[in-house]
Amino acid sequence: MIKIYDFTGSGNGYKTWLLASQLGVPFQRIERDILKGETRTPEFLKKNPNGRIPTLELDDGTFLFESGAILWYLAEGTPFMPADLLERAQTLQWMFFEQYSHEPYIAVARFWKHFFDKLTPQQEANLPDIMKKGYAALDVMEKHLASRTFFVGNRYGLADIALYAYTHVAHEGEFDLSRYPHITAWLACVKAQPGYIAMDHKF
Amino acid sequence: MIKIYDFTGSGNGYKTWLLASQLGVPFQRIERDILKGETRTPEFLKKNPNGRIPTLELDDGTFLFESGAILWYLAEGTPFMPADLLERAQTLQWMFFEQYSHEPYIAVARFWKHFFDKLTPQQEANLPDIMKKGYAALDVMEKHLASRTFFVGNRYGLADIALYAYTHVAHEGEFDLSRYPHITAWLACVKAQPGYIAMDHKF
Repeated sequence: MIKIYDFTGSGNGYKTWLLASQLGVPFQRIERDILKGETRTPEFLKKNPNGRIPTLELDDGTFLFESGAILWYLAEGTPFMPADLLERAQTLQWMFFEQYSHEPYIAVARFWKHFFDKLTPQQEANLPDIMKKGYAALDVMEKHLASRTFFVGNRYGLADIALYAYTHVAHEGEFDLSRYPHITAWLACVKAQPGYIAMDHKF
Repeated sequence: MIKIYDFTGSGNGYKTWLLASQLGVPFQRIERDILKGETRTPEFLKKNPNGRIPTLELDDGTFLFESGAILWYLAEGTPFMPADLLERAQTLQWMFFEQYSHEPYIAVARFWKHFFDKLTPQQEANLPDIMKKGYAALDVMEKHLASRTFFVGNRYGLADIALYAYTHVAHEGEFDLSRYPHITAWLACVKAQPGYIAMDHKF
């Protein structure tokens, strides 16, 4: 059985086990507390030299890291990945958008506000820029969803899973999603997918 | 002929036309000066709603953005992408690593030092953390390359192209690459690949 090293509350981890659940792939979820440095131990760095969750362990002991790469590995050849070349590239377009233009702002603002009692002066100084860039990412999503139900090929898939994880908890970073009717409708469509499980699922 | 919207000196743009050149795919390169806001005009936002280069335009007028997605689109079915499922996922692992843990530090430090005369006080305050995280990414690469010639499957491919672009100009961000013998050897191997063209290539 595959193992997913994860941290409770991580959207990046959630993506991987939401997909595994929807695919019906059995997995063991193993908690590593990033706030206690449990992904920076010599033992964990042998699994993932970049010291992060999620990290996937295959049955033969091979490790794979980066949520996007884990999603891709699990989804190839399934209906969660488009069969068309251009749509596969568009899927990656939104997955890279999420990791570069969305997660570093929306997930970071949420992480600071949700997991920390108090911000450092440097975090306080960076927060306005982070909120601004988070809203810019939401604006791009809203515009794209104005004429579509899902991100790629009008069918639920990897791009939706990748973007859903931190968007649906953006309010925990004090982003106001009520400004975004198309995103709000899309969130409901993702939640209604067969096999959906919530991010606060108790294993 | 495909069109690549690009900005001179961008490593993200360079990745896409280095691959196109090595594949022998003809392309037209179109300059858009990000320092003059030329990717934030209403006209450009119709091509890429996220307002960034590189952006690919296909013959039928379809646009594709995010360098990683463009690389994937061009490389599928060629020797630049592994035929093995796990190696394809490992390729994406390093491509996502580059966009999340490498580019936001190494490319950003270089951009500030190479393109700006003077940093803002906020940039000055963030720089030590950016340099530290950039070196952390180089450390991960050095460790991985200690036992390999290339990043995935011991064969030159997309992961190498994605990581080469900003690593080979990291010194322009004042990163000291002399500390990294394995990275230095790998940079030379990439440069020696058939069809290699330099980032300052004159079109």
